[in-house]
Amino acid sequence: MLKKIAIFGVGLIGGSFALALKRAGAVGQVVGVGRTAATLERARELGIIDAGSTSVAAALEGAELVLIAAPVAQTGAILAAIAPHLRPGTVVTDAGSTKCDVVAAARQALGAKLNQFVPGHPIAGAELSGPDAALADLYVGKKVVLTALPENTADDVERVAAAWRTCGALIHRLTPEQHDSVFAAVSHLPHLLAFGLVDDIARKAHADLLFQYAASGFRDFTRIAGSSPEMWRDISLANQAALLSELDDYMVQLQRMRALLAAGDGAALEAVYANAQRARHAWIKTIEAGERPAPCSGD
Amino acid sequence: MLKKIAIFGVGLIGGSFALALKRAGAVGQVVGVGRTAATLERARELGIIDAGSTSVAAALEGAELVLIAAPVAQTGAILAAIAPHLRPGTVVTDAGSTKCDVVAAARQALGAKLNQFVPGHPIAGAELSGPDAALADLYVGKKVVLTALPENTADDVERVAAAWRTCGALIHRLTPEQHDSVFAAVSHLPHLLAFGLVDDIARKAHADLLFQYAASGFRDFTRIAGSSPEMWRDISLANQAALLSELDDYMVQLQRMRALLAAGDGAALEAVYANAQRARHAWIKTIEAGERPAPCSGD
Repeated sequence: MLKKIAIFGVGLIGGSFALALKRAGAVGQVVGVGRTAATLERARELGIIDAGSTSVAAALEGAELVLIAAPVAQTGAILAAIAPHLRPGTVVTDAGSTKCDVVAAARQALGAKLNQFVPGHPIAGAELSGPDAALADLYVGKKVVLTALPENTADDVERVAAAWRTCGALIHRLTPEQHDSVFAAVSHLPHLLAFGLVDDIARKAHADLLFQYAASGFRDFTRIAGSSPEMWRDISLANQAALLSELDDYMVQLQRMRALLAAGDGAALEAVYANAQRARHAWIKTIEAGERPAPCSGD
Repeated sequence: MLKKIAIFGVGLIGGSFALALKRAGAVGQVVGVGRTAATLERARELGIIDAGSTSVAAALEGAELVLIAAPVAQTGAILAAIAPHLRPGTVVTDAGSTKCDVVAAARQALGAKLNQFVPGHPIAGAELSGPDAALADLYVGKKVVLTALPENTADDVERVAAAWRTCGALIHRLTPEQHDSVFAAVSHLPHLLAFGLVDDIARKAHADLLFQYAASGFRDFTRIAGSSPEMWRDISLANQAALLSELDDYMVQLQRMRALLAAGDGAALEAVYANAQRARHAWIKTIEAGERPAPCSGD
């Protein structure tokens, strides 16, 4: 049971975390910190927080756990605002999609208090945002990656892990570097590729004709190009090195496939397609198995 | 009312065409032609065809309309088999995903009878195939692109268009070149890109770790990489020139985005993402409007 937690950013991610802990009876008081009074008031109406605050000092007073769930570009500024008020006994975590940049910002902002920061990334999201989108069961069965630092104590890491497990999440552990490399490949690169394809088509002279014949395959392939440009600009820049590396690998792959196509090498092209189909089918089987209810699963 | 039609390939595409015409009472007899007796027998059991035949001559005898709905790589051979038995009064159409190669094959196989061939492409499909996947309403509200030839008579084109309209489809007209360029951009390239990404990831040393963290965005982006490798090998080769051209455009786009990312130019990167998001939202609105029931729509 946590006596008090503070949530910076009471939208989909932070709001769902608070709702899940409240539903489980795992938290006494939830204080929300936000930039606009209207959002905090809405979160209070929805029962996400017990009180809103614009004072970082007041919010941190007596808080055992702090979750930073604001847009990633604000993480550094929030950590800097937190630092002077951070007392022993308070653990801070975050929900950012990139981790090396967050760790660097935390190192700079928190200095000797870095040990109190346990970086995290819940792998959950939805097309909607804001307090009204928050759901108590958003994290049930979802992965939360913690990228604990050498400075963290096992107890502090466990406090963060336990809170997420209470939300129904499955805890995974990676280093910040592993995390950023993995998500560059399976999330950030696909977003860049989808944005790139739609922009490429939209800028062609006969774009209207092209879009007229785009069908369900195109719809699924480009769904992630409907995501927030600001958010993905920030993620792309925050994970620049890993994303460049994955993009370069992929451009080599396209050059290779281009050569096969230009040479009319059907057998080699089919081998690429078949390997992809096989790997995707195997992956889908794995995630379908993983999506079965698994009440006892943990780290 | 068509007295008799012949269907080469009684699977999802050909079978659904036959079922729709039968349900509308728009056809007297449907003869199926296929390579295996078992498939033809199954199609007969399902009420897709009235009779199966392994004789092209018998199947064409008295047929007013012939639909070739076999894998595209077989189209040339089927046209060559049809040619000697093709009498005046019979119109042949096809359902291939590429059109310039089909027109070239038809020109070679049919010679002076080319005027009797009206190329077509129904924009409908499903993950399943074979006679059991056929549905009488597969084409309701879907587009069928006819790429009529200068040699075709207006009456013959109308006979093909009328049959598809009876199936509930909306008739569109493009030249074969326009068709192949459009589908290279909005269908064939996305397939190549999705196959390419999954193969690229699957061949990495830490592929298992990567797939473990792939989530719903990746699932949608790569859905088309679950498609048939053989079919997409054939389509890629059949539309080689247009696909190479679209792939080259896209690789230029990726090089441009790579430069922006490497330079840390967040504003320019966001502009690409924002243009893509805007274009995709506009497109989704259009297709949602187009998917409303439109009983009186035609060409």
